[in-house]
Amino acid sequence: MSDLSPSLADPLKEANEPSSLVARFGPDTPLLMDCGVSLDHWQIAYQTYGSLNAARSNAILVCHALTGDQHLASRNPITGKGGWWTAMIGPGKPIDTERFFVICSNVIGGCTGTTGPASTNAATGKPWGLQFPVVTIRDMVRAQRHLIDSLGIESLFCAAGGSMGGMQVLQWAASYPERVFSALPLATGAKHSAQNIAFHEVGRQAVMADPDWRGGRYLEEGTRPAKGLSVARMGAHITYLSEPALHRKFGRKLQDREAPTFSFDADFQVESYLRYQGVSFVERFDANSYLYMTRAMDYFDLADDHGGVLAKAFAGTKTRFCVASFTSDWLFPTADSRAIVHALNAAGASVSFVELESDKGHDAFLLEEPNLFATTRGFIGAAARARGI
Amino acid sequence: MSDLSPSLADPLKEANEPSSLVARFGPDTPLLMDCGVSLDHWQIAYQTYGSLNAARSNAILVCHALTGDQHLASRNPITGKGGWWTAMIGPGKPIDTERFFVICSNVIGGCTGTTGPASTNAATGKPWGLQFPVVTIRDMVRAQRHLIDSLGIESLFCAAGGSMGGMQVLQWAASYPERVFSALPLATGAKHSAQNIAFHEVGRQAVMADPDWRGGRYLEEGTRPAKGLSVARMGAHITYLSEPALHRKFGRKLQDREAPTFSFDADFQVESYLRYQGVSFVERFDANSYLYMTRAMDYFDLADDHGGVLAKAFAGTKTRFCVASFTSDWLFPTADSRAIVHALNAAGASVSFVELESDKGHDAFLLEEPNLFATTRGFIGAAARARGI
Repeated sequence: MSDLSPSLADPLKEANEPSSLVARFGPDTPLLMDCGVSLDHWQIAYQTYGSLNAARSNAILVCHALTGDQHLASRNPITGKGGWWTAMIGPGKPIDTERFFVICSNVIGGCTGTTGPASTNAATGKPWGLQFPVVTIRDMVRAQRHLIDSLGIESLFCAAGGSMGGMQVLQWAASYPERVFSALPLATGAKHSAQNIAFHEVGRQAVMADPDWRGGRYLEEGTRPAKGLSVARMGAHITYLSEPALHRKFGRKLQDREAPTFSFDADFQVESYLRYQGVSFVERFDANSYLYMTRAMDYFDLADDHGGVLAKAFAGTKTRFCVASFTSDWLFPTADSRAIVHALNAAGASVSFVELESDKGHDAFLLEEPNLFATTRGFIGAAARARGI
Repeated sequence: MSDLSPSLADPLKEANEPSSLVARFGPDTPLLMDCGVSLDHWQIAYQTYGSLNAARSNAILVCHALTGDQHLASRNPITGKGGWWTAMIGPGKPIDTERFFVICSNVIGGCTGTTGPASTNAATGKPWGLQFPVVTIRDMVRAQRHLIDSLGIESLFCAAGGSMGGMQVLQWAASYPERVFSALPLATGAKHSAQNIAFHEVGRQAVMADPDWRGGRYLEEGTRPAKGLSVARMGAHITYLSEPALHRKFGRKLQDREAPTFSFDADFQVESYLRYQGVSFVERFDANSYLYMTRAMDYFDLADDHGGVLAKAFAGTKTRFCVASFTSDWLFPTADSRAIVHALNAAGASVSFVELESDKGHDAFLLEEPNLFATTRGFIGAAARARGI
């Protein structure tokens, strides 16, 4: 391990490096960031599945969501669980690793092997903390482009992802249109709404309110803002589900008891479930990274880089798009996807759009959704034929 | 001030008692609570507007919402601002204080003069804190009934309120049908949904995560869980608004700056607004009371007291109901009001129902909504004619 390897807090110490590939970049390939900082020692941790063909034309980049990681379709060494998109990716699956070379990298600012606020700042020998430059979605994509360059891939067959991953997909198509043959942005938007910024701000304030956060220097000081991060996750988790899904799963059912206890215990199953979500999240995620990821999403407004006209972000694009939303997703409602589709149409792009019926809320893109699988399989198959794969 | 007067934390110390009426109850009128506790020293702080007529038939009880108080239509001594429903209540207003005697009391468990967790427990001489019995909506209504008894009012002309206030209105109609001539439950439900319980639980965990909460003993220990309570309020506040309202008011507008700062400052106006909501709330509300109020709403399920059949809660009722919801209220969506109306219809009750067009979300019931005012004026006027007032 070089001295650039991430220095992570306790439960994250079993870093992913041993089981992840790592691309390291030095001063000859600095990462020029939107905030004006140039990172000249940085790395990306990533996973690949399947094989790159001789023409190097079958690479699919999957971009992960807010708290995702590179462990797409294989065991996650931190949680011990399977990858986060095993339902979608694997041999014979909608994104078929027998046909495609699938790459997933931890984003810049992340906490599972890619350089982020928990990594050591080579200039000080200490964890970056809040001294780490604030990251944008475009920075994430710039970093991925360096990775793709280093893998010798000129053009991605497809960029795919949901939520923050979908934002990266849109940014890829806007920043490097000639390098993305097809794009599959799911359950996402071309900008973050006021309500979504508001929810993120509550989460950040929950983290920062925890005295163990120590102004972001908790790694140096040997503490962890576990309670604050847990509260942040609990609140965010509600927004990933739908009211019907919560009603179906939990309703007002009590937890292991016949009657309410008239106390502040977790009487209701939904309380117990949320507490578990909070506690287990803290075991796998760095609190400062959470601040950086939420901030990147808040700052995202693709039209803003193009005079407020989203269609201009896609002017002259040859990329083939498939945009999908879910009926019960209130974090990125269908209206957000329609705005993307309208802009793509105005730009003369090839785009298909589907609103998928689901009561599972925003998280539907991660779950067993046969309609999503069918849509993905169809889109990928047609694009592969068009590319002659 | 008797030794039963509430002992409140710093900014709340300018208690409302001097400017509020207070009804005190002793061992001869204990408050029998759902949790099994009998409070034998307790008090209610309240305000009245207008005059009780000779027949004592023109009393309207207004029930306040989660963080409301008795300062309905007159200056609030803590905030220095006007009452929370001055738009609705006053001379010539929809609830006309020249015709009606309007009463509003702080609920049991509250923090503006009525006995609650910040009050002194006579048995120990210390603030109750979490030793205060857990309160239900039915307990709030029981306490109000004692107040109405003490005022010599046999039958309320109307019980009115929104959100948690609407829950109390429904409970009044169910518990004491012969004492409520008409009922106006607004933006409410007959039970709290799983999603709403979930949001409340996040708020409670935010308070309890604050080390200054001290297991609920912060008043004794001279601390205040201001950060935790502020985070709780920020999260809750989002649920009181609608996405369209947040978009209209703030969108992605930056706060006093031309470009993002690439930091965790409140770059966006919506962040600054939310932070202000959090900070100002802490100045007027007791953290433990917040736990108790949210818990009372979570426990509310009127059908549950009647074998799961809501209509049975209103069997044989003579009360005239008007139920109203708002199109953009996602905390208590119209479906919740419809469920109330269906039950009232099944019970053979007199009920009118209106879904009001508004983009202001749940808080619409507190705001300048001409359609709500017209609905209220019409309902109250017709009911007054029916009662011969």
